[in-house]
Amino acid sequence: MTNIRQAACIGGGVIGGAWAARFLLGGIDVSMYDPHPDAKRIVGEVLANAERAYSMLTMAPLPPKGRLTFCASVEEAVAGADWIQESVPERVDLKRNVLTEIDRYADPTALIGSSTSGIMPTELQRDMKHPERMFVAHPYNPVYLLPLAELVGGEKTSAETLALAKARLAPIGMKGVILKKEIEAFVGDRLLEAIWREGLWLIHDDICDTETLDDVIRYSFGMRWAQMGLFETYRIAGGEAGMRHFLAQFGPCLSWPWTKLTDVVDLDDALVDKIAAQSDAQSGARGIRELERIRDENLVGIMQALKAGDGGKGWGSGKVLADFEKHLWSKGGAKDGKAKVAPDFSQPLRLVDTKVSAAWVDYNGHMTEHRYLQVFGDTSDALLRLIGVDFAYVEAGNSYYTVETHIRHLGEARLGQALYATLQVLAFDEKRIRYFTTIHDAETGDALATAEQLMLHVDSKVGKSSAAPSNILTRLAPIAEAHAMLPVPDGVGRSVGQKNG
Amino acid sequence: MTNIRQAACIGGGVIGGAWAARFLLGGIDVSMYDPHPDAKRIVGEVLANAERAYSMLTMAPLPPKGRLTFCASVEEAVAGADWIQESVPERVDLKRNVLTEIDRYADPTALIGSSTSGIMPTELQRDMKHPERMFVAHPYNPVYLLPLAELVGGEKTSAETLALAKARLAPIGMKGVILKKEIEAFVGDRLLEAIWREGLWLIHDDICDTETLDDVIRYSFGMRWAQMGLFETYRIAGGEAGMRHFLAQFGPCLSWPWTKLTDVVDLDDALVDKIAAQSDAQSGARGIRELERIRDENLVGIMQALKAGDGGKGWGSGKVLADFEKHLWSKGGAKDGKAKVAPDFSQPLRLVDTKVSAAWVDYNGHMTEHRYLQVFGDTSDALLRLIGVDFAYVEAGNSYYTVETHIRHLGEARLGQALYATLQVLAFDEKRIRYFTTIHDAETGDALATAEQLMLHVDSKVGKSSAAPSNILTRLAPIAEAHAMLPVPDGVGRSVGQKNG
Repeated sequence: MTNIRQAACIGGGVIGGAWAARFLLGGIDVSMYDPHPDAKRIVGEVLANAERAYSMLTMAPLPPKGRLTFCASVEEAVAGADWIQESVPERVDLKRNVLTEIDRYADPTALIGSSTSGIMPTELQRDMKHPERMFVAHPYNPVYLLPLAELVGGEKTSAETLALAKARLAPIGMKGVILKKEIEAFVGDRLLEAIWREGLWLIHDDICDTETLDDVIRYSFGMRWAQMGLFETYRIAGGEAGMRHFLAQFGPCLSWPWTKLTDVVDLDDALVDKIAAQSDAQSGARGIRELERIRDENLVGIMQALKAGDGGKGWGSGKVLADFEKHLWSKGGAKDGKAKVAPDFSQPLRLVDTKVSAAWVDYNGHMTEHRYLQVFGDTSDALLRLIGVDFAYVEAGNSYYTVETHIRHLGEARLGQALYATLQVLAFDEKRIRYFTTIHDAETGDALATAEQLMLHVDSKVGKSSAAPSNILTRLAPIAEAHAMLPVPDGVGRSVGQKNG
Repeated sequence: MTNIRQAACIGGGVIGGAWAARFLLGGIDVSMYDPHPDAKRIVGEVLANAERAYSMLTMAPLPPKGRLTFCASVEEAVAGADWIQESVPERVDLKRNVLTEIDRYADPTALIGSSTSGIMPTELQRDMKHPERMFVAHPYNPVYLLPLAELVGGEKTSAETLALAKARLAPIGMKGVILKKEIEAFVGDRLLEAIWREGLWLIHDDICDTETLDDVIRYSFGMRWAQMGLFETYRIAGGEAGMRHFLAQFGPCLSWPWTKLTDVVDLDDALVDKIAAQSDAQSGARGIRELERIRDENLVGIMQALKAGDGGKGWGSGKVLADFEKHLWSKGGAKDGKAKVAPDFSQPLRLVDTKVSAAWVDYNGHMTEHRYLQVFGDTSDALLRLIGVDFAYVEAGNSYYTVETHIRHLGEARLGQALYATLQVLAFDEKRIRYFTTIHDAETGDALATAEQLMLHVDSKVGKSSAAPSNILTRLAPIAEAHAMLPVPDGVGRSVGQKNG
């Protein structure tokens, strides 16, 4: 993958701050310029939201967080950056001036993206010296979770710029989508504008209130569109006869008088009052911060659900997440491989740090039983990666399978609680590894649960146990030897219900 | 909840068949009338899809499936039904005639819903003798998964009818949404029509192809709309200042020339060819059946993810699913309570039947380790319900907590595989239950995994173990006594890595 080395964010509101969060959590240093007096506070709040969301989103090893620096000028912020993202207010003259200033001070090969939701890039790049590297990268709120960036070039933008921008977004978990032609409002906001106009008429005419309209969306086509778009959904509706059949069947509706789109609703005081009052009735019981948290947890859950899609390969935004994680794991693996400092084997290995996500708890907010085993399993996987049992090894037809597990519950983990897991190797031979994992409360260090597990090395092509190769055993041996010096943990060798002592 | 006792489906295509599946899987008998020669095949295929989806959707106890009867006439089909759903082709004269015939033969108090996606109910009920019980119940494909039914009354529809229809849909997992006024295409199809028109222009003008347009939707606002609608999303975008601020900020865009909605695109041969070709390029590598399966798995995953939303209370369609499951559990419980035939305690209890869902497997299609423990946990829960530890008992502050678990893996479960779990009580006293659960391949009966577990009765208010009350122990005792006559299962009392024999 093609990585961004250093990013600059010009403008640090909700959008600019969330771009910064994407970069920082992707391990990229960010220089921020925003003269607004509240900029630091806003960026800090957005970053806190993003960190909370990422802690639930993935258990892949996030890189060390990038460094955030607030700068006193555009010139200072763009120095050394190879991706500069402009997110200043939506006025063509303001944006053009800021982008021209960015262009003046930036490295001539740095990519310059604008977060504009509607202005054509040709308008924005007009006065630049190096306009070929300027484009629109239009994201969607919350930028740190929603993967889309619409990539739109202007008359002077080079095709290489758009391809490079797309490639550089992938390692931070984003999906760059390149439009063929520039147009005001691009594709997403065109579609949103259409539905927004129609929605305003429905409220204006009292066909329904805002809550009912929202319910109509989220209990039906909203769920379809989280995973397939308009055309793929309609293709299915057409049945085996496909898209042509669908168009033949439903095309004629276009000329029916089913829409008021030919009129523009007058957004006068009366309509504003009506919408505001209905929206208060619908959502006013919760503050914006609470709604944001709920939204982020939902989006995380949707992406995780879609990661299991298409037979486990990942579908849509879940595929983007799976690819992002693969990238994180490979970076984590590369770091392990390159590490010159030997890991400390004189203590149980701390292999997993995580938080109890919303999807992990029961209605009382307690972590459910099988999620403990999920954390134990992730810890086993981390041990295996450490000794060289990585994705390629498994793809080649060998792996370790768990054959036996003994769990003790010693405490309770709750929603949002930070946890870490430590692992001690108890014994091994050429086929087997027996080890003991403890899940700790990250604040107190207290043990919440322990697992004693036995893994067997298998040749998965023939489905039989087999001896692990020497390069794996050579990595395992020094860990096992060091851990043999540690006391045998309490609970090892227990059967269920055995008396203590 | 208000239950439908018997349903009739008039028209059995994709929509009518999926209504039938909703009813049947909700335990309601369905009489179907559709003279189309392929009706039985189509309904059978839709029902198979629905059963597959439900097996992944919930582990709550589905009621015994209703009986499906194909009838020779409308008169025969509607006899005895208290909900009649009309789903014949979208022509006003045809629908009106069918609905008038339904009205003639149906019980005068039976509710009559039409699946029309656009015709006003006043048009449809014109010739009825009992029009006050006729309404539109407009569902969304796939009807067996998407919860929404837009409920729309005509001039002669009574308010009681709409309220009753909404109440009767809840026990089959649907969300009835009542519109204030009738209007052609109602709310959902109005919004869809708007976005469809704009989408056609974007393809016509070569701004993007169908795949790009779909990606723009599904990587951004599609995910937002799976859980919050248009207005709640924009309320968040407005920040603490709320909806009024958002309208002030973005209202002016309405008058910008950002849309071609004032024109109607000519869906001529050239445009049809273009869309069909782009759609083939986008989705043609997969057949419609495969796309349907992927869609259904994704929707199931989204609903399950949203069930964990709002701190575990469930959000949007996840809340609908949670309520549906609560209803299923309560019915399951009621049945147990009312059962005159004592369950057979002379064998291990078969307490869970399930299938390996897409969310449960790794990239190789194997069920992941912690999902075995999820099935074991569900089996424990089923035992607890059987002895009276139900939702109300737990709410009142008492429960059993698992303290120790020993798992053995004996085989592998794969995506889509049917499983069942049996449980044998090994020992109990006033505080503890020790038991042994086996997960079986449902086809061969082979044991795939076993768990020996120990549960402790706790007073969750003080967080300490406590003696279970006598009414619980009285129900547990006969099971434990009968199971004490069974041989001790292989594997009981093992510690990890212990030699066999």
